[in-house]
Amino acid sequence: MKKNKIKIGIVGGTGYTGVELLRLLARHPNAELTCITSRGEAGQPVSDMFPSLRGYVDLAFTDPAQADLKACDVVFFATPNGIAMQQTRALLDAGVRVIDLAADFRIKDVAVWEKWYGMTHACPEIIAEAVYGLPEINRAEIALAQLVANPGCYPTAVQLGFLPLLQAGVVDEANLIADAKSGVSGAGRKAETHILFAEAGDNFKAYGVAGHRHLPEISQGLGLMSGKAVGLTFVPHLTPLIRGIHATLYARLTKETDVQKLFEQHYQAERFVDVLPSGSHPETRSVRGSNQCRIAIHRPQGGDMVVVLSVIDNLVKGAAGQAVQNMNIMFGFEETTGLELVPLLP
Amino acid sequence: MKKNKIKIGIVGGTGYTGVELLRLLARHPNAELTCITSRGEAGQPVSDMFPSLRGYVDLAFTDPAQADLKACDVVFFATPNGIAMQQTRALLDAGVRVIDLAADFRIKDVAVWEKWYGMTHACPEIIAEAVYGLPEINRAEIALAQLVANPGCYPTAVQLGFLPLLQAGVVDEANLIADAKSGVSGAGRKAETHILFAEAGDNFKAYGVAGHRHLPEISQGLGLMSGKAVGLTFVPHLTPLIRGIHATLYARLTKETDVQKLFEQHYQAERFVDVLPSGSHPETRSVRGSNQCRIAIHRPQGGDMVVVLSVIDNLVKGAAGQAVQNMNIMFGFEETTGLELVPLLP
Amino acid sequence: MKKNKIKIGIVGGTGYTGVELLRLLARHPNAELTCITSRGEAGQPVSDMFPSLRGYVDLAFTDPAQADLKACDVVFFATPNGIAMQQTRALLDAGVRVIDLAADFRIKDVAVWEKWYGMTHACPEIIAEAVYGLPEINRAEIALAQLVANPGCYPTAVQLGFLPLLQAGVVDEANLIADAKSGVSGAGRKAETHILFAEAGDNFKAYGVAGHRHLPEISQGLGLMSGKAVGLTFVPHLTPLIRGIHATLYARLTKETDVQKLFEQHYQAERFVDVLPSGSHPETRSVRGSNQCRIAIHRPQGGDMVVVLSVIDNLVKGAAGQAVQNMNIMFGFEETTGLELVPLLP
Amino acid sequence: MKKNKIKIGIVGGTGYTGVELLRLLARHPNAELTCITSRGEAGQPVSDMFPSLRGYVDLAFTDPAQADLKACDVVFFATPNGIAMQQTRALLDAGVRVIDLAADFRIKDVAVWEKWYGMTHACPEIIAEAVYGLPEINRAEIALAQLVANPGCYPTAVQLGFLPLLQAGVVDEANLIADAKSGVSGAGRKAETHILFAEAGDNFKAYGVAGHRHLPEISQGLGLMSGKAVGLTFVPHLTPLIRGIHATLYARLTKETDVQKLFEQHYQAERFVDVLPSGSHPETRSVRGSNQCRIAIHRPQGGDMVVVLSVIDNLVKGAAGQAVQNMNIMFGFEETTGLELVPLLP
Repeated sequence: MKKNKIKIGIVGGTGYTGVELLRLLARHPNAELTCITSRGEAGQPVSDMFPSLRGYVDLAFTDPAQADLKACDVVFFATPNGIAMQQTRALLDAGVRVIDLAADFRIKDVAVWEKWYGMTHACPEIIAEAVYGLPEINRAEIALAQLVANPGCYPTAVQLGFLPLLQAGVVDEANLIADAKSGVSGAGRKAETHILFAEAGDNFKAYGVAGHRHLPEISQGLGLMSGKAVGLTFVPHLTPLIRGIHATLYARLTKETDVQKLFEQHYQAERFVDVLPSGSHPETRSVRGSNQCRIAIHRPQGGDMVVVLSVIDNLVKGAAGQAVQNMNIMFGFEETTGLELVPLLP
Repeated sequence: MKKNKIKIGIVGGTGYTGVELLRLLARHPNAELTCITSRGEAGQPVSDMFPSLRGYVDLAFTDPAQADLKACDVVFFATPNGIAMQQTRALLDAGVRVIDLAADFRIKDVAVWEKWYGMTHACPEIIAEAVYGLPEINRAEIALAQLVANPGCYPTAVQLGFLPLLQAGVVDEANLIADAKSGVSGAGRKAETHILFAEAGDNFKAYGVAGHRHLPEISQGLGLMSGKAVGLTFVPHLTPLIRGIHATLYARLTKETDVQKLFEQHYQAERFVDVLPSGSHPETRSVRGSNQCRIAIHRPQGGDMVVVLSVIDNLVKGAAGQAVQNMNIMFGFEETTGLELVPLLP
Repeated sequence: MKKNKIKIGIVGGTGYTGVELLRLLARHPNAELTCITSRGEAGQPVSDMFPSLRGYVDLAFTDPAQADLKACDVVFFATPNGIAMQQTRALLDAGVRVIDLAADFRIKDVAVWEKWYGMTHACPEIIAEAVYGLPEINRAEIALAQLVANPGCYPTAVQLGFLPLLQAGVVDEANLIADAKSGVSGAGRKAETHILFAEAGDNFKAYGVAGHRHLPEISQGLGLMSGKAVGLTFVPHLTPLIRGIHATLYARLTKETDVQKLFEQHYQAERFVDVLPSGSHPETRSVRGSNQCRIAIHRPQGGDMVVVLSVIDNLVKGAAGQAVQNMNIMFGFEETTGLELVPLLP
Repeated sequence: MKKNKIKIGIVGGTGYTGVELLRLLARHPNAELTCITSRGEAGQPVSDMFPSLRGYVDLAFTDPAQADLKACDVVFFATPNGIAMQQTRALLDAGVRVIDLAADFRIKDVAVWEKWYGMTHACPEIIAEAVYGLPEINRAEIALAQLVANPGCYPTAVQLGFLPLLQAGVVDEANLIADAKSGVSGAGRKAETHILFAEAGDNFKAYGVAGHRHLPEISQGLGLMSGKAVGLTFVPHLTPLIRGIHATLYARLTKETDVQKLFEQHYQAERFVDVLPSGSHPETRSVRGSNQCRIAIHRPQGGDMVVVLSVIDNLVKGAAGQAVQNMNIMFGFEETTGLELVPLLP
């Protein structure tokens, strides 16, 4: 029987994905916020740390040791990598469904995961049953999942941009390029020097060119779409905006195709993927605060190079919003519930 | 009989207050967007100009000459100063209620208005019947008003910050100072050099120190609260943020008072004014995208100088949000309808 | 005989390249600022418009009709495209050397120029004698030039990044990609809506994907380096910073090469091109206010895709600084004179 | 005998005032950078941490324990508060002159200092001999000083703005207000959450209203100018720019005065204080990267309230530039040496 209200637990509520979950769930008609944990801030009202939530969230942070997460219907992990994998088994055993916003369950090949994340996986046996939570690809599996691995922000923007091309098999999948730009909130709410205002402001740089953790996640996803291994060059950049990812994707067309039509048809039933008219240039602010992905497709000078521009809000469609979308699917709510958010512009 | 849905017209939909009205009204359960005018953009879908509205607003701009505004229940003017005064008489005569987001009806003394706005008023006889749309002061009159003069952004932040002190008569009203800082969207969506990104970015300056148009509006309001003319020094500044006003207010206490308690009691029933705990420093982002005003009160070193910190989003509580709040009051809807917006942070 | 001081004229001193020329020339020991023209601002002291120059520049703007530019040794055009071509012939005939910071003389094929710039060229016969002012390629010709076509900002960053690879013939020149990001000052000091702070701030987008005017300029340059026509996909983006260009360049290696060594050797004698150690990620702020180009080279996962990261300050090495560098070469001054500028960080 | 080159040591070269000292001293004709210490970065080339210095600074950081600071002519402390006081005695005894950019020697009353800085002073006996390094007030004493206490950033902007009024005795010194706004670099290069880009960006707030450490420093200075204790309300704010302080000062005129003329006469001989024409609004960017203070004076509506607008670059005139200015005075160099910096605009 479908419940009208489900009990929600959030582990790690002091980061940006945590506060964004709170923003969305506070107004979700089927969500009952039950528990938010934080080791460091136990006892403190959440709205003392985030005054934006005053009047909307009355909870205080709970010490993880005291939190009765097993009484929840679903638990979100908005924690650093490596935390969810330590607690997920017990929750699943207790019948609690889990959505991990970190990377613990995204990579199917545990050796690859361990190499990129630099730690031993605590529960490799669960990885197989985790469903990768990109609804535009895995909607049916998500509905049945006990454990959802919520995609990374870059992977969401890049995969949605390449998906129609790879599924249609019309591009050279061995030579894909994703030149991606992220706002600074993507680095999290961590006290680190390189993301200070006076460091990241009025500044632009690439990072992780030698190898970024989202590379294997994206490659795995693109490979599944394509039906064979892909060759991908992925270059992330840090750009002085707070929210937003802009992925500029390059693929060589191997078969003459009306790419505009291909994308429009592929996404026509998707509420959260918006294919813009031919010739458009999506702006990150056109999705600010919303769960939307907007995509435009170009063929410069009419050649065989396809350039896809894909934008999302890294904290919404790239994290908390997609997690709520997954929750809606898992619990049989209308997929857009709580996510009818008009972007904030300007 | 209270209507469930009212027909809405917006004159001037291409500026920031216009697009903000659209953002709010698109999700308002009692609003039926009927008509949005623009001379320059007639025929163009609104969402072509503002892709953030794709999926939420289907209307195209209408030429003002063709617009059947008289069929609306309420018309919002989101126009430059001097436009509303030319069309309001005819709309009122047709039984349409009007909310002017510009300054045409804010100043009761027409000579003062004409001096500061540099034009002759087109319908001075209507000014007296216009109600100044600050609900926290004029709620009852707004409910009955045919014509509401929606307050300016600075005037909203400054008046809400001084109100409890002046009504209680506990400060020297002859020596008030309002040092106010505004985000750049407050200057409107106009092609002017001084508000370019490369001019206003990474830059801070005062402006209009010799005299800003919001000065007479604020002085009029403070005088009404105080029961006598006030002396006010008002210094506005341009700060490199998109949305937000921060007013830092200085008043000398003339009667020993628990100012924290005074403010808490004054605003305890107000949904959109939030008095923070003693010692707080409200941030503009804590109200970003919302209709909230947050206020903190200080007495540095325990002296008799009261420092009030008051923040709003200039486009919401300082413009479109307050206009919707007024609409709700005028048409008997719950005052918070369509305005339960959790601020976007970060 | 080499002059110790040369007389300088600047046509169009009210834009960003104009004020940047003034910043640099005001402290140049061999420059005597003689004349700065502006139609709109004639008679106004330059430092009234740009208070940053108070104490350094005493000139007032001169009406172009009154300006005695023929008395100058060199005239810089810091004007929109299409102005320099109307005045250059007369200046050259009078023995004045000309440096055009706009695009009038950059493209050798006049038909290509007329197509991309949408106007008829006023003096196509001069184009052949103009020297393309990229000193790292054309130093000797610049020294003898009467007319220098100062390169565009994107073309400078992109060409310096591809140069060693193309000259060495080690990459597939038919499939080059330049994904470039520019600060907003690159759009000039024009009253246009899309570059307002509240539009371009906290926002990121691509533009001109279908075709940008810098594409033929870059293609021409890369073709000369390569010895044959190149295939280039060029995607520019607008990023919320004031100054700075970051070009991310992709080329497929066709011959195994130590690319780090190739770049270091190529640029070892160049004062204004700095090849960073292997593994680096140059930041735009590391060149802010300076004439430096900093470059890093990567081969992600050791594959055959070479990723070059190239940063410049678009107003210095991408415009005014390079123009002064050209002037130094043309007049026999030490090439670094007036350009020993330590970048402003943070 | 005046040396042509002096040996410079810098203690604490990894913060913003440290790198700014390096920027300025790298091009100072009389400075020989000899030693830069850092405990954490010993052995690392300075330009690895700050690539902006590549080509200008060749030194590596030295471990403080190994640094031969006594061989220097002058040592700058660009350290947190409480460090300089532990090493200054030994340096002075060795004949080394010291300029402390932190607060250790700014407050003459040691009890006041200990209260505000929360530690016991390590060498209270030296405080009396320290000269407060505001050249516009103490030039003669600075020339002879062995130990200079370089002023704080807010204190510099506020004191220069009030100085002519207080020395002339024309305002009510018991009711002064300083509403000051600072860029985020003023908080230092520290890994702290509240100054992250995603926290401080697109945000504005007051802080330290109850009491900021610069209050006693400013009060002490204003009292000396005024000849009696002053009453000051000081409210600092954090604004989303990297560099720059804007102080808006309020004082009630007690004696009718031509304040514009007063300021112009007071500062006519000062190279680094620029009084703007009547009616001006100085911008922080008009001093970006320079040692300039620009001031404008207003009397809104011709009343007796004087509003002074004072802007500086907090890292230059508010820290490293003023320190170099002091060094120039101490060693008999032209006061402007190395400080003829045209501000970077835009």
